[in-house]
Amino acid sequence: MRTAYHEQLDTLNLILGEMCELAGTAMARATQALLQADLAIAEEVISGTDKMTELSARAEEQAFALLALQAPVAGDLRGIVSAMQIVGDVDRMGALALHVAKVARRRHPAKALPEEVNGYFAEMGRLAVQMSENARDVIRSQNPDEAVRLQDDDDAMDDLHRHLFTVLMDRDWSHGVAAAVDVTLLGRYYERFADHAVLIGRRVLFQATGKTPEQFLEVS
Amino acid sequence: MRTAYHEQLDTLNLILGEMCELAGTAMARATQALLQADLAIAEEVISGTDKMTELSARAEEQAFALLALQAPVAGDLRGIVSAMQIVGDVDRMGALALHVAKVARRRHPAKALPEEVNGYFAEMGRLAVQMSENARDVIRSQNPDEAVRLQDDDDAMDDLHRHLFTVLMDRDWSHGVAAAVDVTLLGRYYERFADHAVLIGRRVLFQATGKTPEQFLEVS
Repeated sequence: MRTAYHEQLDTLNLILGEMCELAGTAMARATQALLQADLAIAEEVISGTDKMTELSARAEEQAFALLALQAPVAGDLRGIVSAMQIVGDVDRMGALALHVAKVARRRHPAKALPEEVNGYFAEMGRLAVQMSENARDVIRSQNPDEAVRLQDDDDAMDDLHRHLFTVLMDRDWSHGVAAAVDVTLLGRYYERFADHAVLIGRRVLFQATGKTPEQFLEVS
Repeated sequence: MRTAYHEQLDTLNLILGEMCELAGTAMARATQALLQADLAIAEEVISGTDKMTELSARAEEQAFALLALQAPVAGDLRGIVSAMQIVGDVDRMGALALHVAKVARRRHPAKALPEEVNGYFAEMGRLAVQMSENARDVIRSQNPDEAVRLQDDDDAMDDLHRHLFTVLMDRDWSHGVAAAVDVTLLGRYYERFADHAVLIGRRVLFQATGKTPEQFLEVS
């Protein structure tokens, strides 16, 4: 029975990994739509959300089935509860990619971003995609060290986000308030996307070791 | 044994209700700090987050205990999983109140808000507090109709948020980019706070009926 349990948990984690990949692809495409004011790609991201909804429902069903049929205890239980929380995180990552795509669509045919912040968003997009890939890998490997390392990428994201604000607040900002509002919200979307990837790392760590990152780093 | 289960679930829901109340109080105080540039109140909100962390840990322990000890099935299981998701929502509501308090502290002794948007934030604050109270009541009553009604308050919040943006985007906005960035982020914090209250309504509805709001409204 333990084997059946672990097989089913593997299936669940496969779905979660696929969801991370989907969120990463959506964010990559949304960033492209944003930087190039590409309406077709923005629309593609927006209409692609059904797939995430479907995977998310499948993951929750699988988790419920595991809980109900296997009556797991202790560590097993922890694993399933974490998995359910991960579903929530990846769903949110998908929603944030969708928000980015919608800004690109709303401003089309104009570019939402002033030229001078393009570099920031290209880099934030790259980091976001990398973090969703790392989250996927961590879900698959259940490797505690990799799980903790997601925090480092997030530090890079926070640095970018802070720099972006210094550009916005600079008295030389010449793009007006509307562009500033867009840039503020977009920056927040990327930052929150990264936060959820970090949360996935925390949850996998807890799944695998029962520890928070703080407890884990103290011991190791 | 079913009675013991329901007693324990009641205890869990009591903690969740208390968490909602705490988030509401934090948002009320944070709004006050924001509108009056009151540093002492902002600090009070910021240092008050320990209490939420503590309640949140107690709620998760209680939920784990229910899952592990009672080996619940079907409807019971749904109730506990929803409760765990509610913990995540209320935690986030507390974090958003904290964000508001931090903006107030960062701008002190100046006011973060230009006079002309004060009214919007007073009203968004009032709505946010009301929604957290309604979420608390819904958790306690498990009343499906009340749970669905949380959506209406959110529509009011969305309207306010939209109007706020028209003020920001108006060519007469004379408060510069820095104030616009603050107002944009603050508006987003209140809007997300309300979103989580709506999610709590959805989760309670699912706890109580196994239905989404869409399914529930179709039938009733």
